[in-house]
Amino acid sequence: MAINIQNILSANAKSMRRSAIRDLLSVANRPEVISFAGGFPNPASFPVEDLKVIMQEVLELDSTAALQYGPTEGNAKLRQLIAERYIAQGLNITKDNVMITTSSQQAIDLTTKIFINPGDTIVCGLPSYLGALQAFWSYQANPIGVTKDEELEVVVRALIASGKKPKFVYTIPDFQNPSGITMNLQQRREVIAVAKKYDLIIIEDSPYRELRFEGETQPLMYSMDNERVILLGTFSKTFLPGFRLGWIIAPTNVIEKLIVAKQSTDLCAPVFDQAVAARYLEKGLFDKNLKNTIELYRKQRNHMLACFEKYMPEVVKWTRPEGGLFLFVTLPEGYDATELFNVAIKENVAFVIGEAFHCDGSGKNTMRINFSFMNEERTEEGVKRLAKAIKKMLETAPVAPATTF
Amino acid sequence: MAINIQNILSANAKSMRRSAIRDLLSVANRPEVISFAGGFPNPASFPVEDLKVIMQEVLELDSTAALQYGPTEGNAKLRQLIAERYIAQGLNITKDNVMITTSSQQAIDLTTKIFINPGDTIVCGLPSYLGALQAFWSYQANPIGVTKDEELEVVVRALIASGKKPKFVYTIPDFQNPSGITMNLQQRREVIAVAKKYDLIIIEDSPYRELRFEGETQPLMYSMDNERVILLGTFSKTFLPGFRLGWIIAPTNVIEKLIVAKQSTDLCAPVFDQAVAARYLEKGLFDKNLKNTIELYRKQRNHMLACFEKYMPEVVKWTRPEGGLFLFVTLPEGYDATELFNVAIKENVAFVIGEAFHCDGSGKNTMRINFSFMNEERTEEGVKRLAKAIKKMLETAPVAPATTF
Repeated sequence: MAINIQNILSANAKSMRRSAIRDLLSVANRPEVISFAGGFPNPASFPVEDLKVIMQEVLELDSTAALQYGPTEGNAKLRQLIAERYIAQGLNITKDNVMITTSSQQAIDLTTKIFINPGDTIVCGLPSYLGALQAFWSYQANPIGVTKDEELEVVVRALIASGKKPKFVYTIPDFQNPSGITMNLQQRREVIAVAKKYDLIIIEDSPYRELRFEGETQPLMYSMDNERVILLGTFSKTFLPGFRLGWIIAPTNVIEKLIVAKQSTDLCAPVFDQAVAARYLEKGLFDKNLKNTIELYRKQRNHMLACFEKYMPEVVKWTRPEGGLFLFVTLPEGYDATELFNVAIKENVAFVIGEAFHCDGSGKNTMRINFSFMNEERTEEGVKRLAKAIKKMLETAPVAPATTF
Repeated sequence: MAINIQNILSANAKSMRRSAIRDLLSVANRPEVISFAGGFPNPASFPVEDLKVIMQEVLELDSTAALQYGPTEGNAKLRQLIAERYIAQGLNITKDNVMITTSSQQAIDLTTKIFINPGDTIVCGLPSYLGALQAFWSYQANPIGVTKDEELEVVVRALIASGKKPKFVYTIPDFQNPSGITMNLQQRREVIAVAKKYDLIIIEDSPYRELRFEGETQPLMYSMDNERVILLGTFSKTFLPGFRLGWIIAPTNVIEKLIVAKQSTDLCAPVFDQAVAARYLEKGLFDKNLKNTIELYRKQRNHMLACFEKYMPEVVKWTRPEGGLFLFVTLPEGYDATELFNVAIKENVAFVIGEAFHCDGSGKNTMRINFSFMNEERTEEGVKRLAKAIKKMLETAPVAPATTF
């Protein structure tokens, strides 16, 4: 049974793009496949025993509120606790600047919904987070990629000159997804200066910031300019993704618009989960667990890097991220990671093709490798298989020298 | 600190309307106010003791999956269990026709997003659910109200003739919010016949269906035509609202579009909550608890009706719903429930003005009264106060006879 919907789908629906990751994951779901594809936290980081206690406490002490509808802006205590964490990082905010969202994906969706008209441009990284690109496309926005910091002003100026001034700049300054790169202070200053000069909003998406293994913490862009930055955060990587809790930090007039937008979207974020999260933070368990998670992921990154050193052919290049969940891998120019995927999946190893993160379809010779999810043994075996697949591809598909144009 | 956003808000954002209910509730939130305003289930219906056991079991047996990211379409077991409940009601579906949503508000939002272009019309009840109207407005749709069944075909024909063929008919056939009315079989047949004749989709929103106190269950419209009905359901009224779980039943080609739309909206519905809900249903606890909830609400409705009989001036009219959560109350023609609200709130009693549910701003002399939330004593006191406020208004604001035009 089907409804004939082709003639009545909205322009938004026609502009939506199915997630390449989702399709890859369905192939990678077979138990024999070692998948570096998802951005999944390690289940070993889930504080199961603490949750057992806290959930009983919430049901015992707070069930009337925790199982009922909640306010659209979120649990007041949770908003307060999140505000305090950011105040400690130099933000000049109160809990009135915090709205809880049903995951930071919703934070991106709502922010896009309140600002974007069809055809509007958004400046983002090339590559950038696929889920953000999907949200932009779902409102018929036109994301324009910037590969290097120095390009930002040029791109913005060109867009303005062509009558397509960007609605906002979308950036992931800490351990960018997928590249793993972190902006230094100077780079942050420059992005803000460009935004100021051309009167642009900056969306600072910050899901990985607290997962730093080494190096110096950089200031939040919101702390450097609280009149043009909207900051997005989430518990998905630092606590657990199964609760679907994120947040938006923004000036109150933006929060007010977002609350109205959220009302008609899902009324309020998961209420029980918020009560549990608030209690978990309040008891100091969040920071304790996060410390262990950082240790775990540092170890896993180091192991992944060691395996890459050990097994990868020399022509393959990869990043050494100071935090986050991903390595970004570059094949020699002219090779196609989609072709590699087809070889690799026969070797029972999976990754995400980098092209998926490039809004202009470039990056064909890149790929994203997750190191948070797999244990050490499976990681080594997976890298071995991947290296084998790459060698196969290099042998069978030698690339002609690039033309000079 | 504020961002100057007026010039850059989207047309969607400008078209959004703040919930009148939300604003009313903030006034009604003072502890001395007896509020019949919200659509809140009674906390006595929350199965707290069962949840204590089930949450421990889920954490013990299934934490790896229950705390991780989940599939966009939802927990497979939960989808199967929901499908089975509907199959027992005559639906010809499988779990592939079920997508779990983050509340049925999201089900409305996503359905609107995939079908509506700015300016599109939607036919709905006059009155109808405010949250649906808000979702429609947030995509710049134009909801057109129908007061009586016989009007439906006339309205549809007029819209088509004016080049504004409706994208869908939105209806709440069981215990409609706010009117409490249930469509009989003949009425359902007629709506489907009109939809068939003009090739329209029907959105059957069904949050209250299982809360029937008396009378005969009518068939789901989806069971009468599975090629043009999209059915929306929720646990919010029959289990608990704090989990934010709803669902969409639709032909698979519609489900596929909705999955893509949901990916960029929040990736997946609350995963832990879904695991708990699946286990709760599987153990047969849902039906056991629902039986008690129906008993409780039947008693509360009877009590509310008895209080209305006892205290209300004769000129006030109200419905006698066979199920659901609300009475719908009509003041004499020419009186304004917003004025009454201002009198009533001084008497420390609150309700929702009926105008909020009328997409054309009509219904000024109507109001919605919730009977599920308050205990008997507070209910009686609240109705007493409300009757006092109405008498005051009737005395001080006699209405001139309506002109005959």
